[in-house]
Amino acid sequence: MSSKDLVLEIPYGTRDFLPQEAAEKRAIEACIAREFEIWGYDEVVTPTIEFLDTLTMGNGSNLEPQMFKLFDKENRTMALRYEMTTPIARVVASRLGEEWLPHKLSYISSVFRYEKTQTGRQCEFHQAGVELIGSSKATADAEVIALAANLMKKAGLKDFQICLGQVEFINGLMQQCCIFPKQQALIKEAIERRDLVALNEIVDATELSASAREMVKQLPLLHGGRQVLKKAYNMAMNEQSRRALDNLTEIYELLEAYDAAEYVTFDLGVIRDFSYYTGMVFETYTPGLGFPLCGGGRYDHMLTDFGTALPATGFAVGIERILLALERQGLEKPQAVKDIYAAYAPGKQLEAIRMVQKLRDEGKTCELAMSACLEQEAEAYRAEKGYQQVIFIK
Amino acid sequence: MSSKDLVLEIPYGTRDFLPQEAAEKRAIEACIAREFEIWGYDEVVTPTIEFLDTLTMGNGSNLEPQMFKLFDKENRTMALRYEMTTPIARVVASRLGEEWLPHKLSYISSVFRYEKTQTGRQCEFHQAGVELIGSSKATADAEVIALAANLMKKAGLKDFQICLGQVEFINGLMQQCCIFPKQQALIKEAIERRDLVALNEIVDATELSASAREMVKQLPLLHGGRQVLKKAYNMAMNEQSRRALDNLTEIYELLEAYDAAEYVTFDLGVIRDFSYYTGMVFETYTPGLGFPLCGGGRYDHMLTDFGTALPATGFAVGIERILLALERQGLEKPQAVKDIYAAYAPGKQLEAIRMVQKLRDEGKTCELAMSACLEQEAEAYRAEKGYQQVIFIK
Repeated sequence: MSSKDLVLEIPYGTRDFLPQEAAEKRAIEACIAREFEIWGYDEVVTPTIEFLDTLTMGNGSNLEPQMFKLFDKENRTMALRYEMTTPIARVVASRLGEEWLPHKLSYISSVFRYEKTQTGRQCEFHQAGVELIGSSKATADAEVIALAANLMKKAGLKDFQICLGQVEFINGLMQQCCIFPKQQALIKEAIERRDLVALNEIVDATELSASAREMVKQLPLLHGGRQVLKKAYNMAMNEQSRRALDNLTEIYELLEAYDAAEYVTFDLGVIRDFSYYTGMVFETYTPGLGFPLCGGGRYDHMLTDFGTALPATGFAVGIERILLALERQGLEKPQAVKDIYAAYAPGKQLEAIRMVQKLRDEGKTCELAMSACLEQEAEAYRAEKGYQQVIFIK
Repeated sequence: MSSKDLVLEIPYGTRDFLPQEAAEKRAIEACIAREFEIWGYDEVVTPTIEFLDTLTMGNGSNLEPQMFKLFDKENRTMALRYEMTTPIARVVASRLGEEWLPHKLSYISSVFRYEKTQTGRQCEFHQAGVELIGSSKATADAEVIALAANLMKKAGLKDFQICLGQVEFINGLMQQCCIFPKQQALIKEAIERRDLVALNEIVDATELSASAREMVKQLPLLHGGRQVLKKAYNMAMNEQSRRALDNLTEIYELLEAYDAAEYVTFDLGVIRDFSYYTGMVFETYTPGLGFPLCGGGRYDHMLTDFGTALPATGFAVGIERILLALERQGLEKPQAVKDIYAAYAPGKQLEAIRMVQKLRDEGKTCELAMSACLEQEAEAYRAEKGYQQVIFIK
């Protein structure tokens, strides 16, 4: 590869959005921003770069190897934001205070993760999301889930499923079975990966009773309608896991009032990839994508870590994943509007300028030719660039 | 400072946009995006991170110390984008080709520069701009200047000035005066800084004739209406500088057709801070800001450096600077719309949910209380958060 080719390359896991792709991205983001506004969520924008200590405060240092790191002039380690929940927790703790609660905040932002790329997973990608901070109520959890469901619909998706779990149900069950913390971590990891073979192996290697083993192996299978909750109540022998199920029951009733319950499937094996979740967790799936479009949950400790003891819940949705889902399902993606290509014969340039300015004032999208041309050349350019009409001044 | 305070800090030269600020930013960006669309400019989105070799290809390595650098897994040096003209040149050269010209492209993007911060200058800031690639005509230059003027008006600015220069006029004049390249660089730097004292010292230290010295000292003073061009024609003794003035004359006539000439002041001392400019250059000023809101010009060599010999022209405008100008001039900034705060007495939660969903479907912005409260509490929250109305369900 010559050095000329090298300067044309872009870093691993990044991409360009060419005109059609960028127009789709802008339209989806505008639609999401509008929906956030309608639900009373205020946008915040945080720096692309934060101190590493801030970002790991939220996520723990185990995610550090996946962060894009750089150094400031005083050699403090910074990193590109890995997700937006932690930066927003920092904003709330440092700038917004605890007087007028809750804070309902939203963002639409790029985030950065060193990961092996695959379809729907890049190292730089774009997320939209909300953080509802200062309420521990099921109302808050139900609101963010209902908002996520509404976003899916507004984005144009017709068929999607919200898989709803509760990390305290699993934690309570592990407690009840007296599973050691180290084993708990292995078990959770296997459940998160949906790796039933590994789960069985891990469980069979423990000293647990046969009934406890059976119960843990059942966890990833607790997936379905309301009858799943009934089954789970029969397994829940302590306060912790029963309270988690009561919480899911309450959230579900609220989602019925939102007309969003039809999208919900209980899935008590949902754990999520961030360690900060402390209550309900959910992921949204749609046909044709093997990974969630959207995910979130309750995280009641992160704000405390930043010095402001407030409960919180929220979710994030992947912009590129929504666009991919629309494409795979053959659904309509937002299109740029291209009204008029204005071209002109020699000597008619000033007249053409005055005309396009008038059309633009009327709100028409209107591209002006940069030099005089023939009428058939103008038509060819129009067709190539996707304008609906040529106006040719001769 | 405790370690808790440290995690609440953000890196030097970065900032958070709190809700009101973020709403203003989003509204201005939406207005600009719409104007770009109306003028037939297609948005492109490029990665936040590029290879250092790519970024310096456009700017030369002298800007490297101001770049935020980081390393990929193979230890290649990358940097956060410093400006958007270079990444877009790369996109055109690598992805868009030369068949259907011109390319009219736009962007709205964050950029990153290590600089001493001051009002209106942060290390991470946001720019919008266009690149018109593939036309060497004055029509192209006039179009981007007219679009810049329109953006200012659409953003709400009433009073602004476009200072228009031409780097080839200065280059031609230097040629004509037989000034050595090293001296040329010093002279240009002094002119760019508007440092007349330094300029006089540099010029007086040369071997130039008295008349040549006088001419160079006059350069920063060539500022004003059309009579400035007349004065400049009298100084221009070679083809290069005369062609530059012819170019400005043609651009001005086109700007008259755009109704934008009233904003233009000729300023032949405008040089701009990027070395890549090869023709007309302009900067936009507004009362109350001591720095340009907007700047741009023609750059006919950059695409050639990327392997695609295409002429180009464009500009960038600072989003934060527009907001600052609106504020300093006491002009109206875009406001978030906040219609209804919906609260409820105990037991009325489900009813409240159904009501807000109906209001949201009608396009009202509507925040729902997270728990039952008293009517006067709801009113206090409404006032604090800026909603126009409380609806209280009892």
